[in-house]
Amino acid sequence: MRQLVLIRHGESVWNKENLFTGWTDVNLSEKGEEESRRAGRLLREKGFVFDVAFTSVLKRAVRTLWLILDEMDLVWIPERKDWRLNERHYGALQGLNKAQTAEKYGEEQVKLWRRSYHVRPPALPEGDERYPGRDPRYSTLAKHLIPNTECLQDTVERVLPFWQQEIAPALREGRRVLVVAHGNSLRGLIKYLDRVSDSDIVNLEIATGTPLVYELDDDLKPVRHYYASDSGKLS
Amino acid sequence: MRQLVLIRHGESVWNKENLFTGWTDVNLSEKGEEESRRAGRLLREKGFVFDVAFTSVLKRAVRTLWLILDEMDLVWIPERKDWRLNERHYGALQGLNKAQTAEKYGEEQVKLWRRSYHVRPPALPEGDERYPGRDPRYSTLAKHLIPNTECLQDTVERVLPFWQQEIAPALREGRRVLVVAHGNSLRGLIKYLDRVSDSDIVNLEIATGTPLVYELDDDLKPVRHYYASDSGKLS
Repeated sequence: MRQLVLIRHGESVWNKENLFTGWTDVNLSEKGEEESRRAGRLLREKGFVFDVAFTSVLKRAVRTLWLILDEMDLVWIPERKDWRLNERHYGALQGLNKAQTAEKYGEEQVKLWRRSYHVRPPALPEGDERYPGRDPRYSTLAKHLIPNTECLQDTVERVLPFWQQEIAPALREGRRVLVVAHGNSLRGLIKYLDRVSDSDIVNLEIATGTPLVYELDDDLKPVRHYYASDSGKLS
Repeated sequence: MRQLVLIRHGESVWNKENLFTGWTDVNLSEKGEEESRRAGRLLREKGFVFDVAFTSVLKRAVRTLWLILDEMDLVWIPERKDWRLNERHYGALQGLNKAQTAEKYGEEQVKLWRRSYHVRPPALPEGDERYPGRDPRYSTLAKHLIPNTECLQDTVERVLPFWQQEIAPALREGRRVLVVAHGNSLRGLIKYLDRVSDSDIVNLEIATGTPLVYELDDDLKPVRHYYASDSGKLS
């Protein structure tokens, strides 16, 4: 049996403020730090061990991972950080207040951007200071790879090559894998693993800071999955 | 000009208690955490940036690195953790009190173990619970690579292949490199870079938590080096 654990990062300071975050590199809130430590303690108590960890290049995910590894006494395992596990890029909405955006564009439009699989938010205009190509962590990427907005489908389509190239090979080697990422990049993995439809995946909510455990067969097909929690195993 | 910064981890809880540490995986003390954060703030203030970081698989070094990256807002850069950057293995002395060891074996003998290039401390007996092969982080290594004691020469001889295989190629690619390691693994790098003799290297003291900056030419020969400090540049 192959073991994969997915964790969505803990609360960030912008979650609290109701802003569209996307690739904005905001930090964990104090509550988010505590959620991360609790996830690490829970995994340790349940006897989980990991051989390798994958995360995004956004600090709310990296720091969630570090707090988990610290609590598990596993700070020495290899970590692989990759932009393809980043949150969905939210285009020109990044940094805007969600309520104000709904007032400006209408509830229906915002719901489409947030909950449709194929509709992208307005793109960042060229020269916008939020354009990822201005950030050293993305400046070495080929220009066509750097998003200025993404629909969920776009996110899924960059997450899956990372699964195929990095995560799946580690699992096939028998390594116990931890992935700490974001609501939408994790939706991409779950959509693929559980064959969720385009229309259903947009409504799938993943709890923050709660280990989602997948047991996979040798072909990496899920046998079962459950949230590890203090109260036992929930599906 | 190629840029390499070496940092010795901050104070550990065993430094304070005067115990031989070696590969024992002890944590940073509170003072060690503060030293690490101060090093990170100093590097940020001086305008340093890194593209990749190397450290050992011992938590006092990994956590020093994380605190530095956190202060520098660089938690996203790739980290490479490798046992070859570990502290010298101190054999059967690991965990013993330095003063008591001197009483038992004599000051002269302990000085030889601590300060000679070629003399190894007593080896860990087979089956000792401190033997690294019992630890998952080393259990996949070939048996002949796993030390049960080391003299400084042994440490140098495992550090240099890591320099050649991992650190030097990164520098040749123009990457700005941070290495967070231990007194003796850093002695190995400095011995090689500055062509220090066997008899001189044992007496070279490296400050903890203080960035030691090397500027290297295209052949990775040092042009100059200095400790970055609040008070300016010291050689």
